[in-house]
Amino acid sequence: MTVPGYIRTAPRLKARRAAALPDRIARSAAAPAGESADEIRQWIGRRRAQASFAVDRIPFEALEDWSFAPETGNLAHRSGRFFTVEGLHAAIGEHPERTEWHQPVIVQSEVGILGILAREFDGVLHFLMQAKMEPGNPGLLQLSPTVQATYSNYTKVHKGVAVRYLEYFTDPSRGRVLADVLQSEHGAWFHRKRNRNMIVETSGPVPEHEDFRWLTLRQIHQLLRHDNTVNMDARSVLAALPVRGAPHALHSDTELLSWLALHRAAIPIRSERIPLAGVAGWTRGASSIDHDDDRYFRTVAVSVRASNREVGHWTQPLIEPRGQGVVAFVTRTFAGVPHVLARARAEGGSTEVELGPTVQCQPRSHAHLPVAERPPFLDLVTTAPPSRVRYSALHSEEGGRFLNSVSRYLVVAADEGDAPLDAPPGFCWVSRDQLAALTRYSHYVNVQARTLLLCLNSLDDYA
Amino acid sequence: MTVPGYIRTAPRLKARRAAALPDRIARSAAAPAGESADEIRQWIGRRRAQASFAVDRIPFEALEDWSFAPETGNLAHRSGRFFTVEGLHAAIGEHPERTEWHQPVIVQSEVGILGILAREFDGVLHFLMQAKMEPGNPGLLQLSPTVQATYSNYTKVHKGVAVRYLEYFTDPSRGRVLADVLQSEHGAWFHRKRNRNMIVETSGPVPEHEDFRWLTLRQIHQLLRHDNTVNMDARSVLAALPVRGAPHALHSDTELLSWLALHRAAIPIRSERIPLAGVAGWTRGASSIDHDDDRYFRTVAVSVRASNREVGHWTQPLIEPRGQGVVAFVTRTFAGVPHVLARARAEGGSTEVELGPTVQCQPRSHAHLPVAERPPFLDLVTTAPPSRVRYSALHSEEGGRFLNSVSRYLVVAADEGDAPLDAPPGFCWVSRDQLAALTRYSHYVNVQARTLLLCLNSLDDYA
Repeated sequence: MTVPGYIRTAPRLKARRAAALPDRIARSAAAPAGESADEIRQWIGRRRAQASFAVDRIPFEALEDWSFAPETGNLAHRSGRFFTVEGLHAAIGEHPERTEWHQPVIVQSEVGILGILAREFDGVLHFLMQAKMEPGNPGLLQLSPTVQATYSNYTKVHKGVAVRYLEYFTDPSRGRVLADVLQSEHGAWFHRKRNRNMIVETSGPVPEHEDFRWLTLRQIHQLLRHDNTVNMDARSVLAALPVRGAPHALHSDTELLSWLALHRAAIPIRSERIPLAGVAGWTRGASSIDHDDDRYFRTVAVSVRASNREVGHWTQPLIEPRGQGVVAFVTRTFAGVPHVLARARAEGGSTEVELGPTVQCQPRSHAHLPVAERPPFLDLVTTAPPSRVRYSALHSEEGGRFLNSVSRYLVVAADEGDAPLDAPPGFCWVSRDQLAALTRYSHYVNVQARTLLLCLNSLDDYA
Repeated sequence: MTVPGYIRTAPRLKARRAAALPDRIARSAAAPAGESADEIRQWIGRRRAQASFAVDRIPFEALEDWSFAPETGNLAHRSGRFFTVEGLHAAIGEHPERTEWHQPVIVQSEVGILGILAREFDGVLHFLMQAKMEPGNPGLLQLSPTVQATYSNYTKVHKGVAVRYLEYFTDPSRGRVLADVLQSEHGAWFHRKRNRNMIVETSGPVPEHEDFRWLTLRQIHQLLRHDNTVNMDARSVLAALPVRGAPHALHSDTELLSWLALHRAAIPIRSERIPLAGVAGWTRGASSIDHDDDRYFRTVAVSVRASNREVGHWTQPLIEPRGQGVVAFVTRTFAGVPHVLARARAEGGSTEVELGPTVQCQPRSHAHLPVAERPPFLDLVTTAPPSRVRYSALHSEEGGRFLNSVSRYLVVAADEGDAPLDAPPGFCWVSRDQLAALTRYSHYVNVQARTLLLCLNSLDDYA
């Protein structure tokens, strides 16, 4: 077509997919052993010892700058930023399957950045990981992304020091983006929360800092075998690394997306925020908000003192689950291709049904139910013989919002008797590579499934 | 790995992508001419004449089974189903860019099915299209999907007759799914509305009906050249047909997703439903709810009489825009690959920022603004010389919810002077095939951009 006045410019086009990247990632996962996991854990321990940290439970009235609003009872910071604890009227599904309940919920509509900086050393991709304190973490310090910045952080609402290395994630000219997607977080505790998960590769020199270390993917995979060592944000971001995908699976990609669309249509999430004071079935005490039957979680407050964080002292609310969780994928390998049994998961605070683990629950909160109503496959994964357990470790959720929120993460091999090819309603066999491909898009793979995906990827080293 | 008790089953895996499908779709788009567009339009005209339709504006008090709730002022059906007209406190973006306003909004959290049945005849894919009346459509009857069923429809809340051909979309064993995704609809008028867009191919015999016809994609493309002929639901569903994708583009897929993630993080949508009675700046009269400066849209009520629909008579509210819209993609071809200038679009009722057209506005509602604040590229697309206008037709939005909601849809070729390679803030050059690939996922390509994508695809016939 000839257009009058058309200036012929010939920009260079780019390949839509970076074909070499999965191989580079595989090389990093198979890199020669450098420092061992124990040595890296010792470094985290030294960082913990060199700074002085103290996290103490306090009554709500000792919170500084946080208070319950007189009209709504919502717990908010005086700046109006960070997050609030409000009420949720959760409603899921269509009549007659519709279920409804009330609960407290964390509202944080700001989108933060969880960013990991990558760089090649001697031809092998390394990732700049941080030993970072979060008040709710077991052990306080865990291996974290290079940058964990709320919008308040990087707009300096809390008047702290600048976030180190943030410029790599806010200025695209400083590197090459390997992955970048808004990912949902815990729909059971957050109202529509999501963070921007980024991996950026740089080729230039990067200033060093004693709280940060360059690790290969192999080292990170080895650290994942240890309890409460790699934090949730790091697990979520690393799950977005592209893998070489097997082109075949039990179901085509279209069939998988169709199965998800069916569940999204059948189980719409219609939850609404309500005042925290109006939440039925929960009671606010001097130092906690509790479920009247002691189930699910409580809302508490802590005082934090730290010498090496952006600010040295603060107080904040945290959500504390009542008991340890179980999060598991049941796996089978079909014609050489590893698959997981994913579940279509609707949570009160989520936007849409997402793909979740086979099992994701807090057994203590289900103990009062008749056996038939307990989560499917829970017994299978918690009583599997050791020969079936391909992965098992404890991991905690975001230590900036959750106190001692620990779950046992499991990958359990099954057979036709335990987990038939013809999956039960609400479940679908998804190849590991299909799951990985969906992490490029928002609201497809939930945060617990992303941790398990990273665990699955780590198993390749041990195959 | 050997697992005790493991039963070796060898299921056949499937190719994750249906490699042959884009070619089959291209064949349907290039099929030998059958009935002409004029002949098909005459058939629609005969269907219009043979049924007797009447749509009349009525005052709100003449609505049957619909009423304003005493406490909230929300307009709702007595069954609690279908949809409601409520208030929206829209809030978009972060301080200091945050903007807020009040407006009425349609709330419909049910997810309906928009389904098109496909079948090969003589080796060419055909699509079963319906001549369907919707009260808000200009001309009342338009070419529509095989099935347009709200959840209320197919659970029979309105006690009407069964939805014809619905079984192909609810029973997977009856065909093969070619596309299936929940797609968002107009974020300016709906609160988080989405429908399930499905294309299902069958190989068996399909009963005929006088309101339905099998058309090739070529015939549908030709009908798209005519004003107000192919309805919004059909356009949205057909945009999901997979195309052969050029493997190169100005930006890699990761760069494009990263650009979108940046805008999603910077412009969170924090809108909340409020009572319709509490909407500031709008006034409810006897037969309409109007903006106090006569901008944007009004809410009205109609009475409908029809002899060939699921029910013969009903009344309902509709949203009526104030004036014709302009929806346009500015296009350029780089190294042989067609690109569109997409805009990151945040709308009050949407879940996330989505990719939208270069221009999407109602000029009348912007006429009071200084020139510098009017939509970018609006002048370019409305004053382009005919040689630059590759596509131009009027299309209306969903006639079941919107009354005479007509926009001029345009595809306008541009050059470096009009639309530089270095896109202005908020805009990004996206290849047509990148846009098409994103229609597989929810909340990525908005409804107006999906119509334009189908229009772009239709241009291949004329290249």
